[in-house]
Order: sequence, then C-alpha cells, then structure tokens
Amino acid sequence: MRSADFAERLTQTAKTVDGVIMDLFGDKALPGETLRPTRVTESMRYAALAGGKRLRPFLVVETAALFGKEGEGVLRAAAAIECVHCYSLVHDDLPAMDNDDLRRGQPTTHRKYDEATAILAGDALLTYAFDILADEPTHPDPAVRVALVKTLARASGLGGMVGGQLLDLEAEGRFGDGKPLPLTDKEILRLQSMKTGALLMAGVEMGATLGGASRDERETLQRYGRALGQAFQIADDLLDEEADAATVGKATGKDAAMGKGTLVRLWGKDAARKRLGDLVHEAEGALSGFGDKAAVLREAARFVANRDK
Amino acid sequence: MRSADFAERLTQTAKTVDGVIMDLFGDKALPGETLRPTRVTESMRYAALAGGKRLRPFLVVETAALFGKEGEGVLRAAAAIECVHCYSLVHDDLPAMDNDDLRRGQPTTHRKYDEATAILAGDALLTYAFDILADEPTHPDPAVRVALVKTLARASGLGGMVGGQLLDLEAEGRFGDGKPLPLTDKEILRLQSMKTGALLMAGVEMGATLGGASRDERETLQRYGRALGQAFQIADDLLDEEADAATVGKATGKDAAMGKGTLVRLWGKDAARKRLGDLVHEAEGALSGFGDKAAVLREAARFVANRDK
Repeated sequence: MRSADFAERLTQTAKTVDGVIMDLFGDKALPGETLRPTRVTESMRYAALAGGKRLRPFLVVETAALFGKEGEGVLRAAAAIECVHCYSLVHDDLPAMDNDDLRRGQPTTHRKYDEATAILAGDALLTYAFDILADEPTHPDPAVRVALVKTLARASGLGGMVGGQLLDLEAEGRFGDGKPLPLTDKEILRLQSMKTGALLMAGVEMGATLGGASRDERETLQRYGRALGQAFQIADDLLDEEADAATVGKATGKDAAMGKGTLVRLWGKDAARKRLGDLVHEAEGALSGFGDKAAVLREAARFVANRDK
Repeated sequence: MRSADFAERLTQTAKTVDGVIMDLFGDKALPGETLRPTRVTESMRYAALAGGKRLRPFLVVETAALFGKEGEGVLRAAAAIECVHCYSLVHDDLPAMDNDDLRRGQPTTHRKYDEATAILAGDALLTYAFDILADEPTHPDPAVRVALVKTLARASGLGGMVGGQLLDLEAEGRFGDGKPLPLTDKEILRLQSMKTGALLMAGVEMGATLGGASRDERETLQRYGRALGQAFQIADDLLDEEADAATVGKATGKDAAMGKGTLVRLWGKDAARKRLGDLVHEAEGALSGFGDKAAVLREAARFVANRDK
C-alpha cells in the first residue's frame, strides 16, 4: 500500500469516527440518563473532537476489517477507545499532572474551560466509553460486548495506562526529591508499554474480538500490537528530541529539559532509529499469515515509525 | 426489623465488602495487566477503605437477596459500585472542585498523597469498577455482566452522577459571576437525582439484575430506589444545616455559607422533615409486594432518613 493511500484512509477513518463521536455526544439524554448538561457535552466534544490521528480507532477498524467486519458496531467500539484516549489526555494535561497549555495546537481543556470542568469532562469520557461498549448497538452478542469492556478496562486501568502515567510521574521525581529516577531500559520499556502501549494493543485486540479472531490469530495480532506500540513510543521520543512545537502541536524538548530517561537518550538516536526499523519489521512479519489483507496494518506500522507529529 | 439488627447487618456487609475490595486491590497483576504500581494500589485502598456506610453495596446485596441471590458475584458487583462512589468522592474533594481537606474524619486522598495521585487513583477506581463487572467471576452469563456495566456506566456518567456534580458547581456560581444560581425546587430535585440519586438507584437496579427480577419487579424497585435517593439527599441537607463537623466527619454548614439552594433552605426544616417522612412511606410502600422478605430494604429507607452522619 502506498503511503499516500494510507494517509487518505487514515484521514477518512478519522472523519467517520468524528461523526460517530459527534452523534454519540449529542445533547439528548439516553434512556436512564436524566439530562446532559450543556457544559459537559460541550467540553467532552471539545476534548474529543480537537483533531488527532485517531490511531487507536483506526487499529480497531482495520483489525476488524481483516475479518471482513465493518459497520456501526465497529465504529462505536472505535469511538469508545478514542474516548478513553482523549480522557487520558485531558487529565494528563491538568496543572497537577503535566501542566500543559497546548494540545494539538489548541488550548488544553482546562485552559479552554477550567480545571473542574476538565476533570469532569475526563471522567465523563471514561465512563461513557464503557456505556457505548455495553450498549446493544455495538454488537448483538453480549459476550462480545462484555469482552470489549474487559479488554478496554484492563488496558486503561491501574495495571495499564493509569499505572503507566503514575510510573511516568514517579520517574520524573514528582513524588520524591524532585530528581528524575535513573530508569534502566527495561524499566522504561515497561513504563511505556503501560502508558501508551496497552491502549494501542487494546485497539488491535478489540478489532480481533469484533472480527471473531481465533486464539492463534489473536496471538499473532498481539505480537503486531506490541511491536507497533514500542515503535510508536520510540518515534514519540525521537520527535520530542528533534521536532519543534509548531510541527508537533504540543510542547517539545520537555523530556530533555527535565532530564527524563527515554530510550532515545539511553541508547542514542542512531541506535533508537535502528531499533525502530527492527520493530517495524517485526510488526510487518507478525502479519504475514494474513497476506495482502493486512497491507493497511503493515503500512500503519511504517506510518507510526515515520510520522512527523 | 429492629433498627439495632439493621445497623448490625449494615456493618457486617460493610466488613464483607471491605474484604472483597482488599482482595481485589492486591498488588498482584491480573492477566493483561503489566504491573500494579504500589502508589496506585495504596492510594486506591486509602480512598476505598476509609470507612463509610457502604450503602450502595448494601443496596446491591440486599436487593439481590430479595431473589435469594448471594455470594461472590453479588459481592463483586457491590465492590464495583463502591469503587465508583469512592472515585467520585476523591475527585469531588480535589482543590479544583470542592476543595475539602477532610472526609470521614480523615485527610482526603489528595491531602494524604498529592493531587496527581488523587486524580489517578480516582481514574483507576472508576476504570476498575468496569473491569470487575466485566470479569467472569461476577456472573457466568455475559448478558448479566454487560447489563451491570451498562447500568453502572449510565448512572455514573454525563447524564447521571458526573452531570450532577457539574450542575452542582454551576449552581454554586463557579462558572459564572461567582454568585449562586437561584434554583427552583424542581431544578434542585433534578440535580440531586443525578448527583446522588442515580448511583443509589443503580445499586438497587444491579441487585435486581443479579436477582433476575421481572420487568414488574424492576419497576417496583425503581420506585423504591427513587424515593430512597430523595430521602437520602434531604437527610443530607438537614445534616449539613444541623450537625457539627465532628459528628458528620466532614465539613458542615457549607451549603449555608455559600448561599447554596437546598430543598431544606427552600422549604424550611419542618416541611423538609415532613417530606422526608412521606418519602420513607413511599419507599416502604413500593416494596409491599415482596412481603417480609423486604424488611431489610424497608429498614434501609428509615435508616437513610434518620441517620446522624
């Protein structure tokens, strides 16, 4: 697959998912809801519709497509994982956490509104993700819906994304004497597999669940997801070292400024780039059993490694 | 049922649920989790095991018991709803929200740890609630598990608890000129039905789901849950007006101090107490079809109305 075609497909999926999110985040209350306060729906939409590559939804959609599965249910699951991603950005940006004013070139949610609204918008996004997955239109089989809930919850929680964010703050010395902790590369890999890897992997796994993957296919796809997740993070660290804020749309050079350990700083840029290439190769290789059908997911691995923001 | 027997039963259930929470919040990672950082599990336990009546878990347990249902699955569901309740307390106590230093007579989570840890502990508690519900040991039937997820998510989210908290901040004038909004009693009832009523109702509904209630039984129980929720809030407002912080274990007199509209202030104490009595009567009446089996739930309505903290 040509990378221009891939870029077009990624953009199209992002637009489709944005449309689904827009519908889901309407002001009309669902059965069992009392009313949706305007400030909540507005701030949720602000947080969730501020652009972004929609990589996690894309992984859900394209992994499900491997098995010929598409349509409303897949898109709802895609929207749900994006809700979790966006909530994590809103909370991570808070003054008590990373204290970021800028996200994708726009004011962060607590800057646009205020801290209380941002905390609640994040809470609402996280909660709504599970509502969306548990609701009938996502899949007729409750066993599939509940499997999606479990995958997303486990990847996002104390032993996954939330735990990873805490380890990240800990590594910055936030709970100690203020000095960054000297992490080994194994510790950094573990932290990153929790903080960003787990949710990318969940996207692949949710697609596999929706597609009805066999146990073998699921294991294969996990290998792909794991390599892709690591590649994503190394590329992110390289970007933080090299790019400027205007291109990336958020503050850069922060890792170096706070003396934070990344694989790029531990190994050097050349070795990191070499490892990035190996990971892309690994991700592509994991998909060999799927043949041409997996061309998009293979290109996704290359895209993740080579992106410039 | 004698109120002393009821109090004993409430305490016993609280202890049992605490034990389940303690087990669930262990440091050992589950399949699919990478590792559970100590600071996350510790702060989650601190937030979730700091006492409290465990009223929501009690409603799950006792409603399920109406249908002869008990055991591990019921207790897991009970623990899950308490996770959501405790997360909401942790986030509501944050400086950007209600800025409370004291909760049940102990330092709030952000006071004991720090704001970042409190935000993450809350996020982890909320996420884990859905993991617990979605996991097999909660119920062998995935349709039951996913129904529990949906009930809890909808009651907790933008059109329920989170929305109610935002309306509450709005009523305090937090997003406007700082002056409290003059709410009508209808608006106050709606706000309260979202902020606290929805989760109490979810406890009853989750018990009904676990018990396999018929549609008629579910509607009856919803009438009970609605009346109980309103009674709970009026009792809470009366306590805020009358009790001192040492008894209640948190700051009191805050509503009056900020000129906030409550039903007690709108109607006067006598009329509020009269309404409280009517609501208890309504809650008891809704359960008449269940006969003696519902004695505990009837006593629960009286307890909620007459509690002194």
